[in-house]
Amino acid sequence: MKSIQYLEENKQRFLDELFDLLRIPSVSADSKFKGDVRKAAEYLKANFEKIGADNVEICETPGHPIVYAEKIIDAAKPTVLVYGHYDVQPADPYELWDSPPFEPVIKDERIYARGACDDKGQMYMHVKAFEAMVACNELPCNIKFMIEGEEEVGSDNLGDFVKANTEKLKSDVILISDTSIISNEHPSITVGLKGLSYLEVEVTGPNRDLHSGVYGGGVANPINTLCTMISSLMDETGKVTIPGFYDKVVELTQAEREDLNKAPFSLDAYKKDLGIEAVKGEDGYTTLERVGIRPTLDVNGIWGGYIGEGAKTVLPSKAYAKISTRLVPNQEHTEITELIKNHIESIAPDYVKVKVTPHHGGNPAVTPTDAKGYKAASEAIEKAWGKIPIPTRDGGSIPIVALFSEVLKVDTVLLGMGLDEDAIHSPNESYGLFNYYKGIETIAWFHQYFSK
Amino acid sequence: MKSIQYLEENKQRFLDELFDLLRIPSVSADSKFKGDVRKAAEYLKANFEKIGADNVEICETPGHPIVYAEKIIDAAKPTVLVYGHYDVQPADPYELWDSPPFEPVIKDERIYARGACDDKGQMYMHVKAFEAMVACNELPCNIKFMIEGEEEVGSDNLGDFVKANTEKLKSDVILISDTSIISNEHPSITVGLKGLSYLEVEVTGPNRDLHSGVYGGGVANPINTLCTMISSLMDETGKVTIPGFYDKVVELTQAEREDLNKAPFSLDAYKKDLGIEAVKGEDGYTTLERVGIRPTLDVNGIWGGYIGEGAKTVLPSKAYAKISTRLVPNQEHTEITELIKNHIESIAPDYVKVKVTPHHGGNPAVTPTDAKGYKAASEAIEKAWGKIPIPTRDGGSIPIVALFSEVLKVDTVLLGMGLDEDAIHSPNESYGLFNYYKGIETIAWFHQYFSK
Repeated sequence: MKSIQYLEENKQRFLDELFDLLRIPSVSADSKFKGDVRKAAEYLKANFEKIGADNVEICETPGHPIVYAEKIIDAAKPTVLVYGHYDVQPADPYELWDSPPFEPVIKDERIYARGACDDKGQMYMHVKAFEAMVACNELPCNIKFMIEGEEEVGSDNLGDFVKANTEKLKSDVILISDTSIISNEHPSITVGLKGLSYLEVEVTGPNRDLHSGVYGGGVANPINTLCTMISSLMDETGKVTIPGFYDKVVELTQAEREDLNKAPFSLDAYKKDLGIEAVKGEDGYTTLERVGIRPTLDVNGIWGGYIGEGAKTVLPSKAYAKISTRLVPNQEHTEITELIKNHIESIAPDYVKVKVTPHHGGNPAVTPTDAKGYKAASEAIEKAWGKIPIPTRDGGSIPIVALFSEVLKVDTVLLGMGLDEDAIHSPNESYGLFNYYKGIETIAWFHQYFSK
Repeated sequence: MKSIQYLEENKQRFLDELFDLLRIPSVSADSKFKGDVRKAAEYLKANFEKIGADNVEICETPGHPIVYAEKIIDAAKPTVLVYGHYDVQPADPYELWDSPPFEPVIKDERIYARGACDDKGQMYMHVKAFEAMVACNELPCNIKFMIEGEEEVGSDNLGDFVKANTEKLKSDVILISDTSIISNEHPSITVGLKGLSYLEVEVTGPNRDLHSGVYGGGVANPINTLCTMISSLMDETGKVTIPGFYDKVVELTQAEREDLNKAPFSLDAYKKDLGIEAVKGEDGYTTLERVGIRPTLDVNGIWGGYIGEGAKTVLPSKAYAKISTRLVPNQEHTEITELIKNHIESIAPDYVKVKVTPHHGGNPAVTPTDAKGYKAASEAIEKAWGKIPIPTRDGGSIPIVALFSEVLKVDTVLLGMGLDEDAIHSPNESYGLFNYYKGIETIAWFHQYFSK
């Protein structure tokens, strides 16, 4: 394909442009970066216009804008809708980065920056594949782009946008690169994503901070109380204790579990990479099953009392936690959120007050491997990588996949090119040059195979 | 006494000088205030020199300095050693203060500032009582002052100073105003102080922050683990579960408990003041007993993961807690610290690493009510307040009281004038004008009665 040759000839520029995008600190979670988020949207818009897309627009929402672009070559051809996001996770804690998070550098053939993989590097592969196919007059199908700026904060406004634009977004498959493969030796396609339920809990004891000598032992300490409440949410076997939590979980068949466990995985390498002596999870399931097909609960943040330098003998007024659960089919996220909220409120002892605030959530999703989109993706990987990809179930959530299915009635293909070592959501996030370029190539083949 | 008249005539200046001292942010816990801590010491030194003290000096230590001053009138007379501290607690969180913590204001006859009560207001009463007695030629005994700058961070260097200066500090009683009375209607003298053991715990799971979708359920979350460990430190009856913790606790007799419970106390008023529906503590003990004569455990601070604005789906590498226990006779603080450290290390599961760092501590102390110093204090309060004070057991700790007993072989009289509503260690700390002036008067009487 001429597009592959075009990629070869323009590699450096493709990288330089990605670097410019990575330099923009488009952190959606933090309001002080609001201007930068928009800057990233503008950057994309300008590039789309330059490379030959039509109807490029910045679509305003109550939050961060959505960038839309398209090229319709023939109404009779299939239409691929590409979804991605240009916003990134916060980079805190900055002091743990070896190089500044918004000053991309190459080390050991990897791009280091916040968003290098999640999702700018992966999303931009699609923009460059598009550029190559258009430049070489090899675009075999219609293509539409919907790149949002709020994925990391729950895509709150995407649902309304999609519902209000069903005609504009009409398509035959949705393509997303925001997941990872097992390894560069074992390419894979994610066919299962977990759902998400996220809540914030505030426990209040006394109406003000107190001296822990004068009042300690006499009144409940909200930190101690919060710890006990959190501890009660899971038992020693690793199961979540919230009544009803597992009711709608569909167990995999023995055969499905065997298949899943065939994927290459070394527990020793896993533990060594993470620097832990032992893993810990739900009894009766392997690590791959725990992260892939079982619902889980994590406290993502906890704070209360004095957390500065030195000692302060305070019995604080409040303690807080951010808690999330990952869901599997057929758990429904609004039901689960309600369940957890009610449970936490019910187990709160009478000597504290508890406030539970739900955050964004999303439903789990599984793609069948006999779908047209999956097959095209599988062939594209086989062509570009020389190996048939393994279908996998990931622990991550992309809540809008379920949204697309319900509203647009279209399946999604998760053609991610990331690796675990990319350390997304962590300090020193990176993305391999190999994966960036191989991804552009793979995407070009996908469009070819999907259009047959 | 002429000194009381002198107090009346100089009330405003006594207040203005205290305000000047309160304006100096002498926060010992935070290294960025180091210069201000010294400034406060200098302020005291200057005032001592002005009002007729001898041998006034700033005694250097490896940390913050100690201010020493004395007036020896007659070797045959008794010597009172006054201890206090010019350092203050951190004022965080600043946003909860109604007026800036280091800009004292009067509201409703109360002085509002960090340190207004603990300990500048209370300590300065002694300086002004001294000034009055010297000015009126009514000083009936020898007096020595030892005012340190590290009480809020554990008085780490005081022990060495005291041990190196036993001759200089030779005295017949130590007088301290750093505790509180039941109320202005019910003056009291603290005869029991709890000890303190303080530790910091760090729990490490994976060697870096992880994406909670990709790894959640597969590896232990150090926040969840820390919560379970903390929760296990106390049972539902309110008892600390650490083996050996209660071994050396001396139970009060039935008669002693009855006496203690005679002190004026309204559980309804207590709950209303704190805005709580219910109290919570060790089964089988009243609130007064729980805070006064039972050992207790509190988490003073906890943090881990993402605690900023919005949601971040992180499975963090680390979680931390600051934990302290208040001790009663005859628990020994270094033993208890060792006990707690060992216990926490032993209950840490194999899928995390735990690091326990002890902070400062101190032993509990109880003063007999037939001691000469106690009697003089009781008479002084009866004279100045018109009521016989009630002897009480406080939950607070002043670790150096045990130190003074061991090294200087001298008893301490806790002649504090504070009130619970002073909210020491909290935002909007205050001290009543009534208590400030009544305290100066009481102290002058104490010296009279102690010298008889």
